[in-house]
Amino acid sequence: MKHMRVIFNEELNQVADDLDHMAHRVHTAIEGAGQALLHQDIDAAQQVIDGDLEIDALETSIINQCVQLLAKQGPVATDLRVVVSTLRLASTFERMGDLARHVAEIARRTYPQPALPAEITNIFVRMQAFVSNVSEQLITMLSSKDEALIERIITGDDQLDDIHRQIFTIINSDAWTGSKQQTIDTVLLGRFYERFGDHAVSAARRVGYIVSGFDPTKEPQNMHSAHEDTVLG
Amino acid sequence: MKHMRVIFNEELNQVADDLDHMAHRVHTAIEGAGQALLHQDIDAAQQVIDGDLEIDALETSIINQCVQLLAKQGPVATDLRVVVSTLRLASTFERMGDLARHVAEIARRTYPQPALPAEITNIFVRMQAFVSNVSEQLITMLSSKDEALIERIITGDDQLDDIHRQIFTIINSDAWTGSKQQTIDTVLLGRFYERFGDHAVSAARRVGYIVSGFDPTKEPQNMHSAHEDTVLG
Repeated sequence: MKHMRVIFNEELNQVADDLDHMAHRVHTAIEGAGQALLHQDIDAAQQVIDGDLEIDALETSIINQCVQLLAKQGPVATDLRVVVSTLRLASTFERMGDLARHVAEIARRTYPQPALPAEITNIFVRMQAFVSNVSEQLITMLSSKDEALIERIITGDDQLDDIHRQIFTIINSDAWTGSKQQTIDTVLLGRFYERFGDHAVSAARRVGYIVSGFDPTKEPQNMHSAHEDTVLG
Repeated sequence: MKHMRVIFNEELNQVADDLDHMAHRVHTAIEGAGQALLHQDIDAAQQVIDGDLEIDALETSIINQCVQLLAKQGPVATDLRVVVSTLRLASTFERMGDLARHVAEIARRTYPQPALPAEITNIFVRMQAFVSNVSEQLITMLSSKDEALIERIITGDDQLDDIHRQIFTIINSDAWTGSKQQTIDTVLLGRFYERFGDHAVSAARRVGYIVSGFDPTKEPQNMHSAHEDTVLG
């Protein structure tokens, strides 16, 4: 009969594999969402929308596995932090999948027209490059748990917020040619990208908690100023 | 020396009290946010913004207590579900507090002018009444764990989505007098209210999980159609 510790490690490896798989799916989803939004690619949009069901199913499976691990193994110390963080990371990734889907849904609805007026496209090219990169960093971070990378993901989000703020400046400028519907969509799309970045920060903090045992979910001063920026036009 | 079970129950009661306190704070926050938005009440806005730090601190405290309970007591069955759900409910309430703060921040920024043009105010009066009511239902649900109430919260969210959709119709109509900044703010505010409702549904599902042992986090068909509605102009 296998030692409990061996069983625990096997089960923990399984759930870690599923979480890694989920992070890959989120990365694929945000790449597809960008392709749909920036190149009016209806097939890419549909794939992201359909694929979100798999991301949702992975969340449910991972949470169930974590609850089973807690029930059967009663882990403590680092093992416990791994299980609790995995459970929370699964929910974060699920939301990131939703946000990629929301972007794809807007691209699908406006197809074959682009959702965005030309004067704002470059801003979204930059936000897309940012979130695509950060979603790749999350995959690396999950396996390496490298503290410098965790820190880079957390502090790097300011750049996305800076780009996001420019959306409001452009809409409010005379250069804006968008219809009311395009204004609505641009505001929503900007919010989705900004939230995607926020969730990447949450994910980094949750991995940071595994490493340090300290839950860095809140840095009230920074969090608040970042959030205020969100709603400043 | 106290029996482990007695200690466990005492600690569980403590964290349940904190969660109840958090739900009350969220209800107060959304009431204050509505007062700020609909009556240009700058003091109410500031209270919501300042008060969010306490909600954030409650989340951190509750999560720490839950991890301690898992480490020291290794709960199983219903006890385990209570702890896992409490941990997840704390994060849901924290987000609801953030959303109330976002509403208050917009009201503070546009003060003494209302953020909303007159033709959309009635929609927000109705959304405010809805979220104020649902945040009160969450408090009742936490203590009663009444399954009929849980179900009512989950299914009732469609009404909020219906009201939310009307925002886009009004902005796109000739009746809309809002400036571009007001259009931006209206879209963001609508999104914040809609998300507040989504989080109330999440909270209800998490309490449902305690009661039934089944995690009803996903109803893919409903979730997806609801989300598509979100982005339909």
